[in-house]
Amino acid sequence: MFYPPEIIAIKRDGGTLSENQITQFVKGITDGSITDYQSAALLMAIYINGLNKKETAALTKAMMFSGATMNFNDPTVIDKHSTGGVGDKTSFIIAPLAAACGVKVPMVAGRGLGHTGGTVDKIEAIKGFQTQLTLEDFQDHLIKEGVVLMGQTGDLAPADKKLYALRDVTATISSIPLITASIMSKKLAEGAAGIVMDIKWGNGAFMETKGQAKKLARSIVQTGLSFNRHMMVSITDMNQPLGNAIGNSLELIECFETLKGKGPKDLEELSVHLAGGMIHLAGKSKTHKGGIKKAKAALKDGSGLACLKKLIAHQKGDAKVVDQYDLLPLAKNKKEILAPKSGYLTHIECKNFGLHCVALGGGRVKTSDKIDFGTGLYLHKKRGDKVKKGDVLTTIYFNDNQKEIVSEIESQILQKDIIIKNKNKTSYPSLIEETKISLVAGEMSC
Amino acid sequence: MFYPPEIIAIKRDGGTLSENQITQFVKGITDGSITDYQSAALLMAIYINGLNKKETAALTKAMMFSGATMNFNDPTVIDKHSTGGVGDKTSFIIAPLAAACGVKVPMVAGRGLGHTGGTVDKIEAIKGFQTQLTLEDFQDHLIKEGVVLMGQTGDLAPADKKLYALRDVTATISSIPLITASIMSKKLAEGAAGIVMDIKWGNGAFMETKGQAKKLARSIVQTGLSFNRHMMVSITDMNQPLGNAIGNSLELIECFETLKGKGPKDLEELSVHLAGGMIHLAGKSKTHKGGIKKAKAALKDGSGLACLKKLIAHQKGDAKVVDQYDLLPLAKNKKEILAPKSGYLTHIECKNFGLHCVALGGGRVKTSDKIDFGTGLYLHKKRGDKVKKGDVLTTIYFNDNQKEIVSEIESQILQKDIIIKNKNKTSYPSLIEETKISLVAGEMSC
Repeated sequence: MFYPPEIIAIKRDGGTLSENQITQFVKGITDGSITDYQSAALLMAIYINGLNKKETAALTKAMMFSGATMNFNDPTVIDKHSTGGVGDKTSFIIAPLAAACGVKVPMVAGRGLGHTGGTVDKIEAIKGFQTQLTLEDFQDHLIKEGVVLMGQTGDLAPADKKLYALRDVTATISSIPLITASIMSKKLAEGAAGIVMDIKWGNGAFMETKGQAKKLARSIVQTGLSFNRHMMVSITDMNQPLGNAIGNSLELIECFETLKGKGPKDLEELSVHLAGGMIHLAGKSKTHKGGIKKAKAALKDGSGLACLKKLIAHQKGDAKVVDQYDLLPLAKNKKEILAPKSGYLTHIECKNFGLHCVALGGGRVKTSDKIDFGTGLYLHKKRGDKVKKGDVLTTIYFNDNQKEIVSEIESQILQKDIIIKNKNKTSYPSLIEETKISLVAGEMSC
Repeated sequence: MFYPPEIIAIKRDGGTLSENQITQFVKGITDGSITDYQSAALLMAIYINGLNKKETAALTKAMMFSGATMNFNDPTVIDKHSTGGVGDKTSFIIAPLAAACGVKVPMVAGRGLGHTGGTVDKIEAIKGFQTQLTLEDFQDHLIKEGVVLMGQTGDLAPADKKLYALRDVTATISSIPLITASIMSKKLAEGAAGIVMDIKWGNGAFMETKGQAKKLARSIVQTGLSFNRHMMVSITDMNQPLGNAIGNSLELIECFETLKGKGPKDLEELSVHLAGGMIHLAGKSKTHKGGIKKAKAALKDGSGLACLKKLIAHQKGDAKVVDQYDLLPLAKNKKEILAPKSGYLTHIECKNFGLHCVALGGGRVKTSDKIDFGTGLYLHKKRGDKVKKGDVLTTIYFNDNQKEIVSEIESQILQKDIIIKNKNKTSYPSLIEETKISLVAGEMSC
């Protein structure tokens, strides 16, 4: 007989759980036969005493099979995931670039919560864009169009939804094996042959240190490989927002500009790096470098943008939006924050910029909040930039009734979120710290 | 604002909780504003990362004040608690002996669950005996009669009831600080000036090693002293049942015999040791040794037995029972287990004897089970005794419909619960391993 306290006691004492014990537990969580307080006790024991490689894979597997799974049996189906940050809008650039190079890209994306924005929220700034698809529609779209974007569904890995909600209120979020199982159970259920992971670290990311990010990267790669998926992980910098725009419509516009070759350098660099990885994992180029080259070409020749237009049109949005930016809702009022002195911008309190966007209605405090697509912030200066007194540092996009919030944000930005010093720092974290590619032996198609 | 996950995170990371944080948490647990899963997560974090002396005292205090508290303001009110074991019936001997020597003894006792018997169950073998008193009755009885016995009430430390139920199903029982707070919150709420603790270790106790028992003893003494209570703790052996009788009526009879000077030596020795401690803590003798002497005298001159008769009569039982044992329910059938070979009895699987008694109906598997007072086991041989093939090792008292259970018990006893070897072992644990007395300075009344 299965007696939950016995399983809990094993992990409590630092022991190792068997695959069967983990499976039984996840089954009990999913069907409600194991109580939330027993799950909470186990989660805390796992948080403190950890899970080894095998246990993490078993937990991932059990969570993955707690709901529907897809299987495309197609080596060119490659998925992409980012652990999230501020101004992280790469999906809308990477997916079309990769698709333009023959990769099939199934995107099941999340909504924003906390200081990070959500891919689904951003795309919904395009009037009419449908993100609520059935799994059948999703598979159909992918096979026909090569790229599809859908909001998270309770059909995939329902155990994760339950466990995540419990972790959120029991202080058991930031555990490497639990994060691994949460991300990977959903990604694996999507049935891709390979997964490209952007793991962000820094004061705007969930992993605050590079060390934590590297640990998570190792854990994710090990888990992916144990399920026979090609894996690429990049550790990237999130100590300042990615690109210049923060806010739903603003970020979409920045993506369109980037696909036209006129985007911020950091955003373009990271996008082609990750898209190149997808192209490589899909077997469409022998090397990652070759993949990056192809992605750059798709950016230059407009085939990436064309792919995005196709995606928008196919999911019932107006594809003209990629050229007519006034089709997107944008707040009428702008407030420019000026540099109080000359010098170098040496530090950005990245997470706070995400929170400012939330305060303007561009993000959510609770899941039921409605998003204001038109508000946000635009950074004219970034880390290392020279500034003159009176230069515009940041533009705030806001609505009529938000003057008080704006003045609060302004004073916070000037007081602590942006630091200007006489001398420039000698070094900043590199945007792409490290990239690791692990291919499942004998499975590459080229 | 009070945000439970922040408190949980502190203990999860091995930090120290403030008295205010602990108080808020216990308050939230008691009034239901903190969920069971958050409590479970905190309990697991406490189990693994521990609580220091101050935190343990704060938890005890918060749990104590979660309900009613009594305060007798009387230095002669001394309480007694045992962590429980098999055949542990000392309360019925200690309390009258101490009361006969001028100690006031408030007993709030538990029912049996698991392999240990409960004091309240045992005394209820006496027809009519009332254990369901109100707190007013309890205080009144104590002041007038000097000794009173009541079943546990939800009025005292209700937070403990909730937390204990949660610990039971989340594998967080065996934690020294949590056990300390559980025991001490109830004992302190009873308002005694001093507490005598019998902390048992061994294969029939909740603490399996002497080391664990000593740790618990230290934690309990520290906590008691921080509440200005005189404390005596003894670490005692529970690697074999105490005395010879296991089962409700059988144990009561053994107590009556002991109060007449005809009881088993181990039971008498421990009883006068603990009663002597109570007499000393109450200020009725200058030393513990002096207290033991007084307790022995009360045993010899029959004043202890007289006190027990008074207690029984006062709580509506028939006091004649102490002489007319047939007033107690006793099972009609006896089965004698005979020694299969000659040698020395070197080992008793103590816990199993408790479980055998439960299997015969003498204890509970779930709280709603009804007790059969008349069944049980009597050990004719104990550890170190010389036995001859064919000697009676144990007598089982059982009912007509229990023949199958009896034959199962017999084969288990012969196969593993009693081990007979050719040679006697050279050493066995001493009954009373260690006793520590800590008096609150300047408060002794003699």
